Amino acid sequence: MSQTPDNAVRQYIDQHSDTFLDDLKEWLRIPSVSAQPEHADDVRRSADWLTGKLKETGFPVTEVWETAGAPAVFAEWPSEDPAAPTVLVYGHHDVQPAALADGWDTEPFEPVIKGKQLYARGAADDKGQVFFHTLGVRAHLAATGRSTPAVHLKLLIEGEEESGSPNFRTLIEQHRGRLAADAVIVSDTGMWSETTPTVCTGMRGLVECELSVCGPDQDIHSGSFGGAVPNPATVVGRIVAALHDGQGRVAIPGFYDGIVELTDRERKLFAELPFDEQEWLRTAKSYAAHGEQGYSTLERIWARPTAEVNGIGGGYQGAGGKTVVPAAAFVKLSFRIVAGQDPARVEAAITQWVEAQLPAGVRHTLTFSGATRPCLTPLDHPALEAVARAMGRAFEQPVRFTREGGSGPAADLQDVLESPVLFLGISVPSDGWHAPNEKVELDLLTKGVEAAAYLWTDLAESLRT
Amino acid sequence: MSQTPDNAVRQYIDQHSDTFLDDLKEWLRIPSVSAQPEHADDVRRSADWLTGKLKETGFPVTEVWETAGAPAVFAEWPSEDPAAPTVLVYGHHDVQPAALADGWDTEPFEPVIKGKQLYARGAADDKGQVFFHTLGVRAHLAATGRSTPAVHLKLLIEGEEESGSPNFRTLIEQHRGRLAADAVIVSDTGMWSETTPTVCTGMRGLVECELSVCGPDQDIHSGSFGGAVPNPATVVGRIVAALHDGQGRVAIPGFYDGIVELTDRERKLFAELPFDEQEWLRTAKSYAAHGEQGYSTLERIWARPTAEVNGIGGGYQGAGGKTVVPAAAFVKLSFRIVAGQDPARVEAAITQWVEAQLPAGVRHTLTFSGATRPCLTPLDHPALEAVARAMGRAFEQPVRFTREGGSGPAADLQDVLESPVLFLGISVPSDGWHAPNEKVELDLLTKGVEAAAYLWTDLAESLRT
Repeated sequence: MSQTPDNAVRQYIDQHSDTFLDDLKEWLRIPSVSAQPEHADDVRRSADWLTGKLKETGFPVTEVWETAGAPAVFAEWPSEDPAAPTVLVYGHHDVQPAALADGWDTEPFEPVIKGKQLYARGAADDKGQVFFHTLGVRAHLAATGRSTPAVHLKLLIEGEEESGSPNFRTLIEQHRGRLAADAVIVSDTGMWSETTPTVCTGMRGLVECELSVCGPDQDIHSGSFGGAVPNPATVVGRIVAALHDGQGRVAIPGFYDGIVELTDRERKLFAELPFDEQEWLRTAKSYAAHGEQGYSTLERIWARPTAEVNGIGGGYQGAGGKTVVPAAAFVKLSFRIVAGQDPARVEAAITQWVEAQLPAGVRHTLTFSGATRPCLTPLDHPALEAVARAMGRAFEQPVRFTREGGSGPAADLQDVLESPVLFLGISVPSDGWHAPNEKVELDLLTKGVEAAAYLWTDLAESLRT
Repeated sequence: MSQTPDNAVRQYIDQHSDTFLDDLKEWLRIPSVSAQPEHADDVRRSADWLTGKLKETGFPVTEVWETAGAPAVFAEWPSEDPAAPTVLVYGHHDVQPAALADGWDTEPFEPVIKGKQLYARGAADDKGQVFFHTLGVRAHLAATGRSTPAVHLKLLIEGEEESGSPNFRTLIEQHRGRLAADAVIVSDTGMWSETTPTVCTGMRGLVECELSVCGPDQDIHSGSFGGAVPNPATVVGRIVAALHDGQGRVAIPGFYDGIVELTDRERKLFAELPFDEQEWLRTAKSYAAHGEQGYSTLERIWARPTAEVNGIGGGYQGAGGKTVVPAAAFVKLSFRIVAGQDPARVEAAITQWVEAQLPAGVRHTLTFSGATRPCLTPLDHPALEAVARAMGRAFEQPVRFTREGGSGPAADLQDVLESPVLFLGISVPSDGWHAPNEKVELDLLTKGVEAAAYLWTDLAESLRT
């Protein structure tokens, strides 16, 4: 595995970094907050700005794609080599809401460089990480002397990621043909830390449901009737308790069917990460590690499926007590799922299990909301190895591997396009995604440009073999 | 057991029933709603009215007793026989709120007789059942030719029962000496039905608590942290589930210690009652009988302790889902307890058990609110036998025995005065306590007067032996 940087790439980046940063700052000044209707025009302005900049970069095809919500940007730069593989880069140009009053030290939409950090909403999530591909592809061309990229390069930069990507799946299904790719590069994640460069290899999926249980037609007196009729709050409590067995495993029959287990190599690599559980607990604002037996905390959050209570309620909610058997109770559950688990199969298992838990005399409704599939690329996948090499060259050290515990639209890309999904990101936990004073480390941003510059040649070869 | 009515008693009651009903209607016109501050004067007016009427009845001592809230009425009529036992009658002169708009067919505080029923708020709960003692004691004197009752007769008619008797315990502790009695007659309960006269032999007690469990300092992301830290909603669900064992018994160690078990005779008598479970379920607005194995529904609600969830909550409560591990969750529990169980001991058992259930990394608070003791008079207690005989004479058939599943101030009387508590009531389930169109059956009201008239002679003898 080569970890040798390329002086030509570095030189090109150095020469163009001022313009690159000026451009990025211009983009960051557009408050493209997708969740706030008053910023709808700004989101559109952001899409137009990016389209123009991609054209300027050299992409022969640049389009604004409409959705039922905010617009996405699509760009394409075919390789002169017709046999070259196709790669699709994914990111998003919308940002989280931000206001000075939230605790920002400077205006969130007035980018400012302090020392080696660029502060602005979207600096890391995700404009900075989208934008490094523009200088990246130029450096790739300059260093290799090519006039087109080594891969057929496509970009899809959506405008609703911070609003839950409500129209994303429809969008990619609609444009499935034009989006077709041999690999997807997602640039919307981070690394372990400044000193431990990493590549994410997958994300967990998500199944969400709400269970409502009804007992008596109205709250009834617990003195007159208590102890002799089913109590829906008790039923819900028992279902919550039955979700896990004594080893912290999800106790729903069939839940683990087909799961892709962690490999020994992955477990070993995770275990080698400089993980400080006490510090992690501080980040989690929690007071103990707790979960499935036989797995480390990192394995639990990255690679193991979970069942979590997000909300529970029923009966008397006011101050003091009220001696009733409640008419109804509910629980909102979410299940993180991992590679090999299918949302539809998991939902069927949950449904069957819930029905088996319910005593006579209660009625229930179980409602599932939109599920997200898991995605995972095996460590020995050639495309993943190429990403790891590109990052390794940029950082001049071998990179390590992580996963993401959360869920995102990357899985839809893997699913609809039937392509492996790779993650190329340089953000670090201190960047403050969704928080005040979001920033990106300028040195890492440059490493991102550099990794993007190395990637296409390597990937073209890896995917060809 | 004599079931022979007394013609002299019946004749006296017949002669005075018109005046009795006119007086009762006058009292029912006073809207003595203790829960509504705007009726505070009415509650006082009710106490004054009753005091005057008791004086008129012949009670040489009549007093209004102040509390921190609404006033109670105390009256005393000593027997000329110094060796006579002392009996205290308990009832209440305050009523539940009522308004025509709630669904009443007639004004709730404008009593009206339709056929053989008297409609008004308080007709059954509890003014009607307090007031039958006035004509009852006069009929007792007239029929026996006595000028004073056969027992030292005391009445305590409180004014805050419908507000949870917040000052009752203090009141009776304060007047413990003057209230001292060999037996307490509570006239604030009902019978099985018009055709099945019954005597209640006890009430369950009550222990209430709220458990709050805190996990993370704030709601945290279930993708980033779920599955690796304790979830307080899950903890609360597990505690709810652990409350009962597979047989529906309360699984808290020590909970059943010292319990007075049902006797075979009681179980046999309960089983003989004309109980229609389907009809009971309709009253309970529930769809299945459910509870402790090995016990009938009546045994479960009358004679077995319970653990019931009255309210539960935590995490996201809005529409749809939110993928968080909640910062906190709570559960409000109430435990009905039976004779032999001590609230303080039960609270200690709950506390110890809850603490043993909690995983590392959560903090909790467990708060108990005012407990109520259970009360029970054994079937073979001479005073209970006297009450049963008096009811049997009035109804011209042997009475059966019931208990009450609810909890009330009767237990405080048993506890503070260290006296057996007996229940003398003629209300029936269709009377609509706390509901619109509350009524009392006039025939049953007359039986109440009659039973009260028979009771004092019999009780004087029973308690003397």
